[in-house]
Amino acid sequence: MSGVGHYDVIVMGGGPGGYIAGERLAHAGLKVLVAEAQALGGTCLNVGCIPTKSLLNGAKLYAHALYGEKFGVTATGVSYDWGAMQAWKTTTVDTLVGGVGAMLKRLKCEVVTGHATLIGPGEVEVDGTRHTSEHVIIATGSEPVMPAFPGTQGNPKVIDSTGMLAVEQVPQRLAVIGGGVIGVEFASLFAALGSQVTVIEMMDEICPFMDADVAAALRKGIEGDVTFHLGSTVTAVDDATVVFTARNGEEQRVEADLVLMAVGRRPLVSGWGAEEAGLDVSRFGVVVDDQMRTNLPNVWAVGDVTGRSLLAHAAYRMGEIASAHIIDTAAATKAGQVMRWHTIPWAVYSLPEAAGVGLTQAQASERYGEILTATVPLALSGRFVAENGVKAPGLVKVVADAATRTVRGVHMLGTYAPETIWGAVAALETELSIDDLRQVVFPHPTVSEGIREAVWAVRG
Amino acid sequence: MSGVGHYDVIVMGGGPGGYIAGERLAHAGLKVLVAEAQALGGTCLNVGCIPTKSLLNGAKLYAHALYGEKFGVTATGVSYDWGAMQAWKTTTVDTLVGGVGAMLKRLKCEVVTGHATLIGPGEVEVDGTRHTSEHVIIATGSEPVMPAFPGTQGNPKVIDSTGMLAVEQVPQRLAVIGGGVIGVEFASLFAALGSQVTVIEMMDEICPFMDADVAAALRKGIEGDVTFHLGSTVTAVDDATVVFTARNGEEQRVEADLVLMAVGRRPLVSGWGAEEAGLDVSRFGVVVDDQMRTNLPNVWAVGDVTGRSLLAHAAYRMGEIASAHIIDTAAATKAGQVMRWHTIPWAVYSLPEAAGVGLTQAQASERYGEILTATVPLALSGRFVAENGVKAPGLVKVVADAATRTVRGVHMLGTYAPETIWGAVAALETELSIDDLRQVVFPHPTVSEGIREAVWAVRG
Repeated sequence: MSGVGHYDVIVMGGGPGGYIAGERLAHAGLKVLVAEAQALGGTCLNVGCIPTKSLLNGAKLYAHALYGEKFGVTATGVSYDWGAMQAWKTTTVDTLVGGVGAMLKRLKCEVVTGHATLIGPGEVEVDGTRHTSEHVIIATGSEPVMPAFPGTQGNPKVIDSTGMLAVEQVPQRLAVIGGGVIGVEFASLFAALGSQVTVIEMMDEICPFMDADVAAALRKGIEGDVTFHLGSTVTAVDDATVVFTARNGEEQRVEADLVLMAVGRRPLVSGWGAEEAGLDVSRFGVVVDDQMRTNLPNVWAVGDVTGRSLLAHAAYRMGEIASAHIIDTAAATKAGQVMRWHTIPWAVYSLPEAAGVGLTQAQASERYGEILTATVPLALSGRFVAENGVKAPGLVKVVADAATRTVRGVHMLGTYAPETIWGAVAALETELSIDDLRQVVFPHPTVSEGIREAVWAVRG
Repeated sequence: MSGVGHYDVIVMGGGPGGYIAGERLAHAGLKVLVAEAQALGGTCLNVGCIPTKSLLNGAKLYAHALYGEKFGVTATGVSYDWGAMQAWKTTTVDTLVGGVGAMLKRLKCEVVTGHATLIGPGEVEVDGTRHTSEHVIIATGSEPVMPAFPGTQGNPKVIDSTGMLAVEQVPQRLAVIGGGVIGVEFASLFAALGSQVTVIEMMDEICPFMDADVAAALRKGIEGDVTFHLGSTVTAVDDATVVFTARNGEEQRVEADLVLMAVGRRPLVSGWGAEEAGLDVSRFGVVVDDQMRTNLPNVWAVGDVTGRSLLAHAAYRMGEIASAHIIDTAAATKAGQVMRWHTIPWAVYSLPEAAGVGLTQAQASERYGEILTATVPLALSGRFVAENGVKAPGLVKVVADAATRTVRGVHMLGTYAPETIWGAVAALETELSIDDLRQVVFPHPTVSEGIREAVWAVRG
């Protein structure tokens, strides 16, 4: 615990956006204080990306053990121990949170546990102690949205993603309100573990940020294990029964043992002095420019609180960009340290997985008018067929603008998609054309070759 | 079966280099004949990449079922059925070989089964039938080297990789002569299936094409399951016992039930008229320039037969480049259709996997003098820790030249390495600097982020 002090930079929040800023700034020799009310690593490490991926890995191993026969591997008495899965999840989280702490300590970045309040530029109070600094970075993150349908308030059977990660037993029947990333990942996880899962989504398709064809293929890939009600508006929850107006206008009910509320997350913009300090906050979050500057001098905001992207790796990048400009804004400007929102990839760790970057076909059509596009099944990949068979769900879509043939989007459903998509990010960053990307050699046999096949399948 | 004909292009060999040439040329509207003596897909699809990956996937599933307890998944009575694994392998191979045939047929590329002989420029004989063409592409591939140690000739217990793929039962004890890619993949496969495996390698480290640190880490990752004798020269085989001179000069023996000869492959340069036609053949293979031209007019060579790279994806690229120049050499030259050997990645599908592209640290030091490099453990990746634990083998090394800071090599050991390395290929193709690559956003949480961590770990 540090006493009153003056710092080069005070970072409010120790999640991905905040801790990476602490890391980059301390590495550059600046005197930095990171104030975190709960645990370093924020939502991502503690109740988000990492625990879900830890449990999803267990679910994947369980599915592999159950369904290995086709590949010549049999196992009897396959079971999972939810308690042991939780214990492994905790081990993973503790290891990684400990790693962040150790890394910041090694770099001599001070960390204080406490609730930080912005007083104004260069002034932050942490649990009653006033600190001063040249710069302040706001990285307060986001929280799950809990809409107040009748029957949800104080209902112990209606929980958010944080609660869902800690349930003491796997529910026999799970209703998920919301078919975005969080809803789909949890639906996939619990369906794999044997729950009877139903997803109720207001829009006509799950994951509206995805290219429509990929979203539909993902849904079809999960359907069977999970029941989807699309275009359906939830009106109430009664104990663990979800009441909703279906697409045809009829009232329907899904009886469950637990209800996961996964309608989204919202920036945490109150409770830490934003209004009092005169910070410009829109209904989307703290308003920032593409270098992460707020309206107040030397006050920056990064990560979920900006509402620009609620992804951990976007938060990392925002933290890096704010740090680069704090360290040397002239050099940072020259080096192009600016958020390029169109090159932020997304990944969904459902079974099957999906990932993508750039414009969807619809967005590209709207932006460029004439576009080039091709979609290929992953059955064209030898490794995919060897590991999954030809009928497993998997596809790649590539989108380019017709005028310059520059690649504008790459979208993928299938095994390894999250691990392979960064190459497409690099391609978008360097503005490769379809013709350039055709010359890039992919190792054989890989599922990543599906991207190459899609690029070659573009006409002309 | 086609009769006597005149073609735009005759392709001798239907492996990766040959069939992709058939595909690209036929797609461009040329009249093409592909002559293949055995099965379309060549070594890669029939007795190489694809069957090994099919079996390795089974071995991975088996290992997952055995060792899932740490992650909360248990199974009693885990077993594999080698016959069923073989059957799945055959299904995979048949599907993919059928796919190549169907694709060529759809493009109206003629395929003839038969032994092709080059008579001279524009003249090829297939099983006694003389065909003529404007161009000839030689894609005859390679074959396993079977050195004639005493005791190997006619010894049914000494087999090559093709034989190993088809063994009727998993040997209790397997001796592998040669610690290159093939030796290591088979050692990994059979060790995972319970064989007691010993690898005898002449060099001081396995996989000499790899960065030395990655090769050592890979070996250590496999050691325990597999015994390695490095710097050891095999002198004889007696039944299934391998006799070798160990590093300390002493004669040693490894008793086994089967011996896999995996000392390498050599270009198939004889038996199809190379000498008679006056083709320039060195001891490495058919001599070609970087556009795949041989010394004879309009005679091209691609793939293993050139000896330049014995990798399927290198063969694909060579086939594409020859095709591009046959279609329109002015346009191809303008578009940079030339082999860039330094951007051909490699991948090893051992457990753990490895992949890389570009210069090793030693090569970069030699080429550039001053270099920048950093190596990080994959324990820095949250997904890696969630799926494997902090102690699992995994690292990334990045190498750049100090003068320009351009990335010259990326080398990786750990899960998903083969699927993620193509991004590094794209980075090398576009000559990204360390600073450029630091701005590329990787999705979180992925193992691919290890590459980003390594790039950030470079000093300066």
